[in-house]
Amino acid sequence: MDELELIDRFFRPLAGEGALGLLDDAGFVSPSSDRDLVVTKDMIAEGVHFLPGDPPETVARKALRVNLSDLAAKGAKPLGYLLALAQPPHCNEPWLKAFCEGLAGDQERYRIALIGGDTIASPDRITVSITAIGTLPTGTMVHRSGAKPGDILYLSGTIGGSNAGLSLLQDRSGAELDEEDRARLVLRYREPQPRTGLAEAVRRHASAALDISDGLAGDADKLASASGVRAVIEARHVPLDPALSKLFDHGFSLEKALTGGDDYEILAAIPPGEENAFKEAAARAEIPVTAIGRVEANGDRAVILKDGEEMAFSRRSFVHGQL
Amino acid sequence: MDELELIDRFFRPLAGEGALGLLDDAGFVSPSSDRDLVVTKDMIAEGVHFLPGDPPETVARKALRVNLSDLAAKGAKPLGYLLALAQPPHCNEPWLKAFCEGLAGDQERYRIALIGGDTIASPDRITVSITAIGTLPTGTMVHRSGAKPGDILYLSGTIGGSNAGLSLLQDRSGAELDEEDRARLVLRYREPQPRTGLAEAVRRHASAALDISDGLAGDADKLASASGVRAVIEARHVPLDPALSKLFDHGFSLEKALTGGDDYEILAAIPPGEENAFKEAAARAEIPVTAIGRVEANGDRAVILKDGEEMAFSRRSFVHGQL
Repeated sequence: MDELELIDRFFRPLAGEGALGLLDDAGFVSPSSDRDLVVTKDMIAEGVHFLPGDPPETVARKALRVNLSDLAAKGAKPLGYLLALAQPPHCNEPWLKAFCEGLAGDQERYRIALIGGDTIASPDRITVSITAIGTLPTGTMVHRSGAKPGDILYLSGTIGGSNAGLSLLQDRSGAELDEEDRARLVLRYREPQPRTGLAEAVRRHASAALDISDGLAGDADKLASASGVRAVIEARHVPLDPALSKLFDHGFSLEKALTGGDDYEILAAIPPGEENAFKEAAARAEIPVTAIGRVEANGDRAVILKDGEEMAFSRRSFVHGQL
Repeated sequence: MDELELIDRFFRPLAGEGALGLLDDAGFVSPSSDRDLVVTKDMIAEGVHFLPGDPPETVARKALRVNLSDLAAKGAKPLGYLLALAQPPHCNEPWLKAFCEGLAGDQERYRIALIGGDTIASPDRITVSITAIGTLPTGTMVHRSGAKPGDILYLSGTIGGSNAGLSLLQDRSGAELDEEDRARLVLRYREPQPRTGLAEAVRRHASAALDISDGLAGDADKLASASGVRAVIEARHVPLDPALSKLFDHGFSLEKALTGGDDYEILAAIPPGEENAFKEAAARAEIPVTAIGRVEANGDRAVILKDGEEMAFSRRSFVHGQL
């Protein structure tokens, strides 16, 4: 199948207004005059960020959603995306069909459309690179660097589930879990749930925010470092995936939950005067948020306390190496 | 080296204003109210679009310039780009240093800055995906679909040289060439010269345009098909790389020149009333342009005439498969 036929059969149905039917050299975006664009680009590769044999729909969703998670953490609303796909022979028609169905479902769910992209041959490995574009009112992007002493640190959802899901896939452990928990953890790994619904609340009320993609400890370090503050987190307040307690006697640990990757939750620094409004906005969006710590002056990293002592980790961030 | 160190040492020096020091989840673009953004995304992979062992600077330039070529063909001025890099172990510090030097030189040359991106581990193959963003006055993007009967078809520069350069690299042919010609052809393959300087002339005077990346015949088909016209090209008017004549008795052919890839010249349809202004603007930009044919009503493909007969090709477009 040549590239034109590929576009015709699989990608044109995904094309939005600025895509020009994917029949031009480039797409376009015509932003209104009172908006900034937020742009982010994440790449995922077979055998690194997803497993060979993972369902194509989930590969599509993961590729798109890790980018939507970045947009949400910056307070931006999704607008459009560009897709580059490196296709080895096993990325065949059934694979592509399912991959594009995964994208189509997410386009509807997150109200975003394809603007452009590229497909190339690959001798071996599937690689997907997505650039997502979001919009927000001029000058309102939420940075990592705005946290102020006195701010309260809020975390959306729960963490640790995704990394546990990866462990289940890799070593087939988790016999102590029932089928429902197993399936849910695997899905957390395969299909991040970007907190798009929280973007508006973050934009209106947070002084700083980022998405937790490489582990809470390391990502909290990044927020602290960018803001020139100390982030103090109480481990007992950090909401963990409810299934994790069943795994703690079986190789999984609190440390893994706090330093594992792929959570795609939002960590936000909320000034005390904005706390109630933030919590109310999150409740309206039906996204649970939990106060897990506070911002203190003078520092450049996060401290995670357990029983009053700072926890020490062998590594603070998850590094995506070969699976 | 972890990702933070990698950013710090190699990529931060490339970061423009909207990149936030590459220390945030996303970059931003704040377009002025009277401009549209043009976005394009091309991916290149080791062993497909460039050869293992190609100098890292040229890989960087090729990755960026194929995107700049798209922007130029749409009439857009470069603004910024995002970079995703899949790094296998042989993409080591000296490689990265040279790669980023290649980008730095081109950023100055084309006045474009890095806005954001991603680096990931790759077990084997270097893959580079770049998304380039350009700007132009609202509503003035030049499409492929605007060619009208009576328009004259203009081509920038010469074609065939890049494909001949690839042949030289692959089969070490070309003994009949002197060193200077050999080096120039190889450079044409490795380092496209996007016609950024022609963008303004294209935007002001062309009814349709595209960049020639997969061969003149197949790309002229695309312009004709998108515009619903017949593109009639006279082979004798098509400017070929001057070294090609020396290769025509040695395996290279006119067909290869007309259907080979990686030319990155611009094909533009110019209404007769705009011809002089277009040629003058091209001359001011010091970019040679040549009238190679005309647009006729009723059609959906290009016809390339040689001695009054339509040329037949075994394939009309270059397909980037494994090198």
